[in-house]
Amino acid sequence: MAKRKASRNPRSPAADRGPPGNRTGDRMADRGALDRYWLYGRHAVLAALENPRRRGDRLLLTAEAARRHEAQLKPLLGGARRELVHDTATRDELGAQLPETAVHQGLAFRVWPLAQPDWAALEPGPGDGRAVVVALDQVTDPQNVGAVLRSAAAFGALAVITTARHAPPESGALAKAASGALETVPYIQVGNLAQALDRFKAEGFWTLGLAGEADGALAECDPGPRVVLVLGAEGSGLRRLTRERCDLLARLPTRPPIDQLNISSAAAVALYELLGRTGP
Amino acid sequence: MAKRKASRNPRSPAADRGPPGNRTGDRMADRGALDRYWLYGRHAVLAALENPRRRGDRLLLTAEAARRHEAQLKPLLGGARRELVHDTATRDELGAQLPETAVHQGLAFRVWPLAQPDWAALEPGPGDGRAVVVALDQVTDPQNVGAVLRSAAAFGALAVITTARHAPPESGALAKAASGALETVPYIQVGNLAQALDRFKAEGFWTLGLAGEADGALAECDPGPRVVLVLGAEGSGLRRLTRERCDLLARLPTRPPIDQLNISSAAAVALYELLGRTGP
Repeated sequence: MAKRKASRNPRSPAADRGPPGNRTGDRMADRGALDRYWLYGRHAVLAALENPRRRGDRLLLTAEAARRHEAQLKPLLGGARRELVHDTATRDELGAQLPETAVHQGLAFRVWPLAQPDWAALEPGPGDGRAVVVALDQVTDPQNVGAVLRSAAAFGALAVITTARHAPPESGALAKAASGALETVPYIQVGNLAQALDRFKAEGFWTLGLAGEADGALAECDPGPRVVLVLGAEGSGLRRLTRERCDLLARLPTRPPIDQLNISSAAAVALYELLGRTGP
Repeated sequence: MAKRKASRNPRSPAADRGPPGNRTGDRMADRGALDRYWLYGRHAVLAALENPRRRGDRLLLTAEAARRHEAQLKPLLGGARRELVHDTATRDELGAQLPETAVHQGLAFRVWPLAQPDWAALEPGPGDGRAVVVALDQVTDPQNVGAVLRSAAAFGALAVITTARHAPPESGALAKAASGALETVPYIQVGNLAQALDRFKAEGFWTLGLAGEADGALAECDPGPRVVLVLGAEGSGLRRLTRERCDLLARLPTRPPIDQLNISSAAAVALYELLGRTGP
């Protein structure tokens, strides 16, 4: 993500070579050399610090952000984060680590991507009502995917699944749009989406595709207690192999000439319909 | 919008000074010198060409875009658009007129902002069911506002109203996110939102504010046949003077820790709920 040269951190000359105080330091450092990226923005950074599964090696805060979030930061920077290198930076120093248009709100946290969860092990908790997984078929824009994660968290979906190719990896822009939800909703990239849908079907999930040309409105269909909501890219929609895996196709009640919502709005509306308009 | 120097148009040396063949050329040219901007992207440009109220003076197309959209463009470039200067450009020439990150899809159209509609004259057509106007209280991000316009068009809202200050003017980024809806849904900037809400109330509209701390869920309230849906900025929410104008406050059924949708997703969900989950 960082387009410009990182400024040197005088307190941690080794910071660029791996996470300090890390028992698997060398291996992680090798991986980190490839994979580390900067999270930025208040919600994305604070949620990442709160997530025990999130590894990171460097935190930059402006003095103003450190003051503003002091109460929330203090416990987060003890415990497992005790050895995290954190520095006060000016807004410009912080911005220099990030893409030019990043709205960082004075916080940036350099992290490793999360380990991929085992999607086959996703199970709704008891009493959670309907279980919904969102599957994205080649949705490429990180901001859209981030916004889908945010809606998935807000309405209580189990996970967001995408293809490994033609879908964005974890990034600062994706995490910013997710507003912290990247830390709470599993974001799972699978090699073959059609096969993944087959496995969900075998586990008793109904696969429900959103498609503008479907006959039935989403509000009129009853997909049962376990649902994979399948959304295609704008324009191209669901690919044939994906569509063939759908037990049901449904449309949102939109009207011409602008008869398509953007993908994140469509996901929010469908999750609202499926996960209880009056709950939780 | 254009950050770099415009390339010369050999067929129209006067193009930078006003719309050619325009009966009110001088006056428009003066206004244009201040206000013209580039629309870009397939839906935004084609919808603008289709909108008879949209004035523009220059259209740039890549050869590929001209071919791909030939059937739609041909009738649009006759009639009232007969004197529009249009040129074939390479992707780079076209991109040079636009912000660096603009996804232009081979089309750019230099236009004047639309005339402000008279918001007091908004009237639902007969038989349209519930009439909904969206009011945005200091929502500043053009992409969010554009996405709200798009959802407003898709679900059949009458208009989107914003404050004149702390709200984005028409721009290429806003129009791109609106995906053509800027041409079909009135986008109205008012000096005083509280006064505008009062006038709607006097016309029989109920003002319904979305607020996370409200007691009732949106699906459980019945705001009647004429509604102004009022949305605040993320984080700050509705300002006091705006909130005091709301007849009802309602919340969406979201859950912690990520209990807020982004503004465009919230607008889409609320419009879906208000304008008929099973219509049109």
